[in-house]
Amino acid sequence: MNILFMIFKVEYTDKNSKARAGILYTDRGIIETPIFMPVATVGTVKGVLQSQLHQEIKAQIILSNTYHLYLRPGIEVIKKARGLHNFIGWNKPILTDSGGYQVFSLAKIRKITNEGVKFLSHIDGSQHFFTPHLVIDIQRILGSDIIMPLDECTPYPCSYEYAKNSMDMTLRWFDNAYQHFIQTNELYNHKQYLFPIIQGSVYDDLRRYNLEKALTYEIPGIAIGGLSVGEPDDDMYRIVDLITTNSNRNLPHYLMGVGTPENILECIALGIDMFDCVLPTRNGRNGMIFTTQGIINIKNAKWATDFSPIDDFAISFVDSYTKAYLHHLFKADEMLGPIIASIHNLSFYIWLVKQARCKIIEGVFYEWKNKVLPTFMQRL
Amino acid sequence: MNILFMIFKVEYTDKNSKARAGILYTDRGIIETPIFMPVATVGTVKGVLQSQLHQEIKAQIILSNTYHLYLRPGIEVIKKARGLHNFIGWNKPILTDSGGYQVFSLAKIRKITNEGVKFLSHIDGSQHFFTPHLVIDIQRILGSDIIMPLDECTPYPCSYEYAKNSMDMTLRWFDNAYQHFIQTNELYNHKQYLFPIIQGSVYDDLRRYNLEKALTYEIPGIAIGGLSVGEPDDDMYRIVDLITTNSNRNLPHYLMGVGTPENILECIALGIDMFDCVLPTRNGRNGMIFTTQGIINIKNAKWATDFSPIDDFAISFVDSYTKAYLHHLFKADEMLGPIIASIHNLSFYIWLVKQARCKIIEGVFYEWKNKVLPTFMQRL
Repeated sequence: MNILFMIFKVEYTDKNSKARAGILYTDRGIIETPIFMPVATVGTVKGVLQSQLHQEIKAQIILSNTYHLYLRPGIEVIKKARGLHNFIGWNKPILTDSGGYQVFSLAKIRKITNEGVKFLSHIDGSQHFFTPHLVIDIQRILGSDIIMPLDECTPYPCSYEYAKNSMDMTLRWFDNAYQHFIQTNELYNHKQYLFPIIQGSVYDDLRRYNLEKALTYEIPGIAIGGLSVGEPDDDMYRIVDLITTNSNRNLPHYLMGVGTPENILECIALGIDMFDCVLPTRNGRNGMIFTTQGIINIKNAKWATDFSPIDDFAISFVDSYTKAYLHHLFKADEMLGPIIASIHNLSFYIWLVKQARCKIIEGVFYEWKNKVLPTFMQRL
Repeated sequence: MNILFMIFKVEYTDKNSKARAGILYTDRGIIETPIFMPVATVGTVKGVLQSQLHQEIKAQIILSNTYHLYLRPGIEVIKKARGLHNFIGWNKPILTDSGGYQVFSLAKIRKITNEGVKFLSHIDGSQHFFTPHLVIDIQRILGSDIIMPLDECTPYPCSYEYAKNSMDMTLRWFDNAYQHFIQTNELYNHKQYLFPIIQGSVYDDLRRYNLEKALTYEIPGIAIGGLSVGEPDDDMYRIVDLITTNSNRNLPHYLMGVGTPENILECIALGIDMFDCVLPTRNGRNGMIFTTQGIINIKNAKWATDFSPIDDFAISFVDSYTKAYLHHLFKADEMLGPIIASIHNLSFYIWLVKQARCKIIEGVFYEWKNKVLPTFMQRL
């Protein structure tokens, strides 16, 4: 078996959409797709214990961030711990993002050259230089199961010229990363897989060009970057559709940083297999609760004496708490509010993609999606 | 059976100290003493789920606060929920403190009269008036299993004259509270028990006088207030010793707001059966971890690459996380740090009193206490 390939089996395909149910095999366990990956930026899903992620939320894979972990606790600490899994106490798969997005969104000052990106830490202002090689080296030390190359995530809106130059550079960086990746080995005896990231903003020809170039490499999957950065949903869906239509459909497709429950179901319909997003945890911490009855702003006074469970459908073990109690916790600024909201929302997201998978297998995904979305997305 | 009495059975007494192992029977389950009660001030132990409190931390009773709950969410909400247990989703015993301590420590402006205490809310500045009757009425609505009368918790240091006048008022308030208590009924068909609070600062004759007066009532237990407010430990131990020596030893004795692991074991030796304190959670949130090897400041750089478990003794399920990971969580200001610290520290406190109970039953409590305390209290 070529170490560059990952085993991905498409088990079922939906007849009325491009949705499919698959299984992704990694050395740390299988992942049933479509899958949602909770975001553990600095090695923790905010407010959630690893045992809860595994046993209660039923996460099969989580996402961490190279930029953040490189700055804190630092690569030396994680090397001494013999990898990120050991360090955080999580023995199932981890995907690490390269840090490109964070360098461009968080770091104070950065300078992009063909060789990489120079930046000042958002924590202490110290100067660092990320190259495609270094980002591979760091992720070898992290030992994450799926790794990402250094890329530039273009903002929205973005001129055609900027998007083109940036994409060209991301492609060159990917080539550097790829060459370095195939010349280096995993450190902890667990296989690692490198996905290229397709950029090109909302420009169809750039996206198509980037995809074609990426497909000339032996790759285990495709990541789609640069979406969910402020563009209209229709642009997101058009680009995703264009990529999955023109791609190698034997590969798993990962849409980075997306999105709302609606975005996720629509993009599953367009052929996406993997998602990650901070929305369920970040918005959860601010009191936005995604339920099978609709979206709740739990801080709203209307919930103060509503003693019904958080979600009638009992998605999660925390759903037996009442809306009134959760409202009280948020009003009193108690930690337990964000904790319950995060556990519930992540459970909802994982339940949502699991439901999608079941409906694909049953052959009724497309109809189910159109039926449930108006309810799931209504504001209560 | 007189509704004023609670069934408390002393099962074992230590031969070398006044320590005893007992069982306290309430309508919501038994409590094995000595017991530590985690503090759920506004109806939540900060950062901890009720299921974790019950299943993992093994709490048998928790403490909430009348002052806080009265201000937020407000008594009307809890009345509609049919009591605090329903509101917060906890069906084991709850003890509620009267709010006297909070009025005097938190409220912006207060005025004490013989009738009660007028104060401005620390949340919104609104004006309120707590009387001994009202505080009973509120706790009838809360439905807590053990309730406390309005009292004044004197500060330390405190002049003899102030302490005497304050104690006289606390005694009058208790009489008012008691008369009102016996003329009113529980609202949810679960018995409630009212303990008097013994005040008198560090003055032996005041403490003795207050105790004698309290013992003239039919009471189910004795609470000792006004300690752990800054006085030397020796004063605390002397007052506790004086009270347990002169009290009705058939009653459970509750030492309010105490303390360190050392304070707790020493006061168990002096005959105390019940404790509550914010120390394990408040200090835990600041990175102080109580372990069987000693006390850790997890923020200290020395733990950054210490990959040993939080507690070698595996007191709690979170102890398998490493010190290095917990250090990282605190340095990165991640919620999971305080969560893990709170779960561990509460587990440690509950384990400590459970161990004390076992050692009392085995007849070796006093020797065990003197042996383990130097280790438990050393700074690592």
